[in-house]
Amino acid sequence: MINGAILIGASEAQGDSRFDAVDPSTGKALDTSFSSAGTDSVEQACALADAAAIPFADLAPADRAAFLEKIADEIVAIGDDLIVRAMAESGLPRARLEGERGRTTGQLKLFATVLREGSWAARTIDPAQPDRQPLPRPDIRLRNISVGPVAVFGASNFPLAFSVAGGDTASALAAGSPVVVKGHPAHPGTGELVARAIQRAVAACGLPEGVFSYLPGTSNELGGALVADPRIKAVGFTGSRGGGLALMRIAAQRAEPIPVYAEMSSINPVILFPAALKARGAALAPAFIGSLTMGAGQFCTNPGLLIAIDGPDLDAFLAAAGEALTGSAAAQMLTPAIHDAYEKGVAALAAHNDVTQVARGVAGEGVNQAQGALFKTSAAQFLADKALGHEVFGSSSIVVTVKDMDEARSVIASLEGQLTATILLDAEDEPLAAQILPVLERKVGRILANGWPTGVEVCHAMVHGGPFPATSDGRTTSVGAKAIERFLRPVSYQALPASLVPAAIADGNPWTLPERVDGVLKLS
Amino acid sequence: MINGAILIGASEAQGDSRFDAVDPSTGKALDTSFSSAGTDSVEQACALADAAAIPFADLAPADRAAFLEKIADEIVAIGDDLIVRAMAESGLPRARLEGERGRTTGQLKLFATVLREGSWAARTIDPAQPDRQPLPRPDIRLRNISVGPVAVFGASNFPLAFSVAGGDTASALAAGSPVVVKGHPAHPGTGELVARAIQRAVAACGLPEGVFSYLPGTSNELGGALVADPRIKAVGFTGSRGGGLALMRIAAQRAEPIPVYAEMSSINPVILFPAALKARGAALAPAFIGSLTMGAGQFCTNPGLLIAIDGPDLDAFLAAAGEALTGSAAAQMLTPAIHDAYEKGVAALAAHNDVTQVARGVAGEGVNQAQGALFKTSAAQFLADKALGHEVFGSSSIVVTVKDMDEARSVIASLEGQLTATILLDAEDEPLAAQILPVLERKVGRILANGWPTGVEVCHAMVHGGPFPATSDGRTTSVGAKAIERFLRPVSYQALPASLVPAAIADGNPWTLPERVDGVLKLS
Repeated sequence: MINGAILIGASEAQGDSRFDAVDPSTGKALDTSFSSAGTDSVEQACALADAAAIPFADLAPADRAAFLEKIADEIVAIGDDLIVRAMAESGLPRARLEGERGRTTGQLKLFATVLREGSWAARTIDPAQPDRQPLPRPDIRLRNISVGPVAVFGASNFPLAFSVAGGDTASALAAGSPVVVKGHPAHPGTGELVARAIQRAVAACGLPEGVFSYLPGTSNELGGALVADPRIKAVGFTGSRGGGLALMRIAAQRAEPIPVYAEMSSINPVILFPAALKARGAALAPAFIGSLTMGAGQFCTNPGLLIAIDGPDLDAFLAAAGEALTGSAAAQMLTPAIHDAYEKGVAALAAHNDVTQVARGVAGEGVNQAQGALFKTSAAQFLADKALGHEVFGSSSIVVTVKDMDEARSVIASLEGQLTATILLDAEDEPLAAQILPVLERKVGRILANGWPTGVEVCHAMVHGGPFPATSDGRTTSVGAKAIERFLRPVSYQALPASLVPAAIADGNPWTLPERVDGVLKLS
Repeated sequence: MINGAILIGASEAQGDSRFDAVDPSTGKALDTSFSSAGTDSVEQACALADAAAIPFADLAPADRAAFLEKIADEIVAIGDDLIVRAMAESGLPRARLEGERGRTTGQLKLFATVLREGSWAARTIDPAQPDRQPLPRPDIRLRNISVGPVAVFGASNFPLAFSVAGGDTASALAAGSPVVVKGHPAHPGTGELVARAIQRAVAACGLPEGVFSYLPGTSNELGGALVADPRIKAVGFTGSRGGGLALMRIAAQRAEPIPVYAEMSSINPVILFPAALKARGAALAPAFIGSLTMGAGQFCTNPGLLIAIDGPDLDAFLAAAGEALTGSAAAQMLTPAIHDAYEKGVAALAAHNDVTQVARGVAGEGVNQAQGALFKTSAAQFLADKALGHEVFGSSSIVVTVKDMDEARSVIASLEGQLTATILLDAEDEPLAAQILPVLERKVGRILANGWPTGVEVCHAMVHGGPFPATSDGRTTSVGAKAIERFLRPVSYQALPASLVPAAIADGNPWTLPERVDGVLKLS
């Protein structure tokens, strides 16, 4: 079922340049060598995507919904081979990957629901007013259409839910955009299995083959050529800040600049308010360490910063957190490169003059294992060195001690944009939290109370986004129903003959969409 | 009422560096010299805007709506002085400016309606599911908030409707964003009158003074410093392609890149289908010339390109168009610089080896007058020289002759992004138009049938936007109700205590907003 091919539309090809999948728990190559796609593959995939763009965007929403559901079915039909391969390539445990498969198919089904509900189309009608003075008003209608073909870059840390058929692909296909995936080299077999499932779904639904192509590869040139191709009209990316910035630069330098939706970097501040710290600091500590070390800390929403008032209550919290971390097992990381970067980031903090090490987790016995790390510094020191606010991807966090919550507010105001902020508070902390909340709102995409930021619900009200550099576009989310909006743009139609009016905005509302008529919202 | 001041919050100041307003009909300076704001003014205005951002964004929608209506009232209260000054500075006639004043106050009132209707807030609630397996779902809510302070660059060609209190300012204020306007030097007295009206409205509504500042000036450095200021979070611009691209570059190079909404360049293709050409080509010609020469052609939606099949029917159309243009009076242009650029653009077309001049309008007798120009070329020649597709701002248009509608489609496919496309067709043209429509949809923001692109309705279904370079962000519109979306971003709130939940998403829906609950849209 896996042969290392490049999948371009309905075809497959083997490339001369090859790379191996690596098992991070051994550092050794797995079976099968994989094609590194070249610029010729980019050219072919983009030509097919361009040819598919109009018919795919013009599908009735129910037909695109059925296609998304078919992809979900085909992924489930791969069976345990998918889980076994993903375990070998990512080092992630079975339960996590089975859950992630459910999340992946759940996302596809959510967008099928979104398509059938129909608000995405933004059906808007301002009827003609032929008798208006001084000038008559023509009939004007608006609908959203796909922006065109989308390039998707999968993430290493979610080999299913944020990769080949992950959130970016699902939302782009939902919007009616053909997708060209640049496969992540950390899980090429997993990627190929899923890509073949999508390829089968395209065929089963009788869609133009260019709706989906899959380009595995290791080179930055491959990704760069894909983003630079004039037929690509938007980009979805989840990964490092450096990678995201590079794609943003390429996109901005095109003859036609295009939007890049890059989810890049976040340290997800946790603010531990005084009453909660006093009443239950020690009890919160193990849960904090649990969130920090879950999945070897390899979540975009990992809590990499905790802010609390210095004093005996915080000392108790730190003692309990240190104890929990000291007993926490090392965990397999996704790739040797991620492990190296983690080790370097932790070493830099450990060697920093103004940073104290609180505790380390148990050292790993195998290769590429994350040993948890907790550090401490003061607000003054944190504010003096911007590097202390940079993400260390993995299970490392830094506690910033403040004199009072005014100083906490200053620390928050100094932060770059974040995916999440967590507030841990008791009832008597609420007036203090009310003062800090407006500052947080302007820094993050999601604020959560008395929970932990790891764990991102796929739902209608989710924002997995936030101001730069959490993402490249803080007006959007990459998780949840609103992710489809990234790949849509509005078009107006004025006084068109009835035969030319698209179904989405035709008289009689054939797709039974919610609509806005003369500014008044109506349910279908 | 005009003294040439810089208006920063509630204060005013005179700058040492000065410039004059010029009457384009004489080329001479008008009374009053105006301050050129410097970077110290940018610093002060942005500090005040930043301080105002949270309280202004947190206003109840009805209060922000009342503020917009108060601005409209204050503009009307200026009385005829505003019209007289705008006439002197722009060379535009009284009726046009009175109409534009109505459009300006109408836009402000439209956004007041939009605010009260409430869809802008995107109230979305996914209630908790405490018993869900394997994990409970927390309560998650979403609302839109302002992106933060916005820099607005007024346009020369709409000294009221796209300037100090124009569409960008109205939609940004509606979103809850404080606004810092960089005043256009072509109409500084008009700008100051309107800026003082907004300043009075801020005071009358008891809002923080930083909600609005006005920085007149002539230098690119002023605008650059404003866009580079870290407290500015988005930019609205209407003007030249060069100007828009310069602001896009500055915004992209910031430590925190921000969105620039620049409306820049469009030649607004008109496609004259064969049956309509045959049946009523000669009758359409005078209306085409009317749209071309209206307001000296100084509209973003001016029809700068017409595509039709070569032959006797087109010859008849061109003869009638030439006759209409030959009799059309010269018209005053907005500024000497715009007139110079128009003259250069027309001269380049006239001297082009592959372009034929069809007709010119009557030569002007005063200074800075536009003499209309109509040219002709073939599809092959048009496709061979990209420069022929560049905008000549003013009453100049080029007719591209094609062999058949397949070639017309190739010409359309070669175009850059456009604000509008116009299709002139009869019933028997509809099957041909149905084939071309999907190509047009992917190139433009608005498609209109059997009308003329000049004249942009301010309504709910309007898109005054389009792919690059028509605008810098084809997912948006700068005219109509949806313009507010440019200055909003979503934030999620997870499991917040009731006392901390913002009113927009509080239990009981205190603002009676339309809402989405568990994915289901409900009217308030």
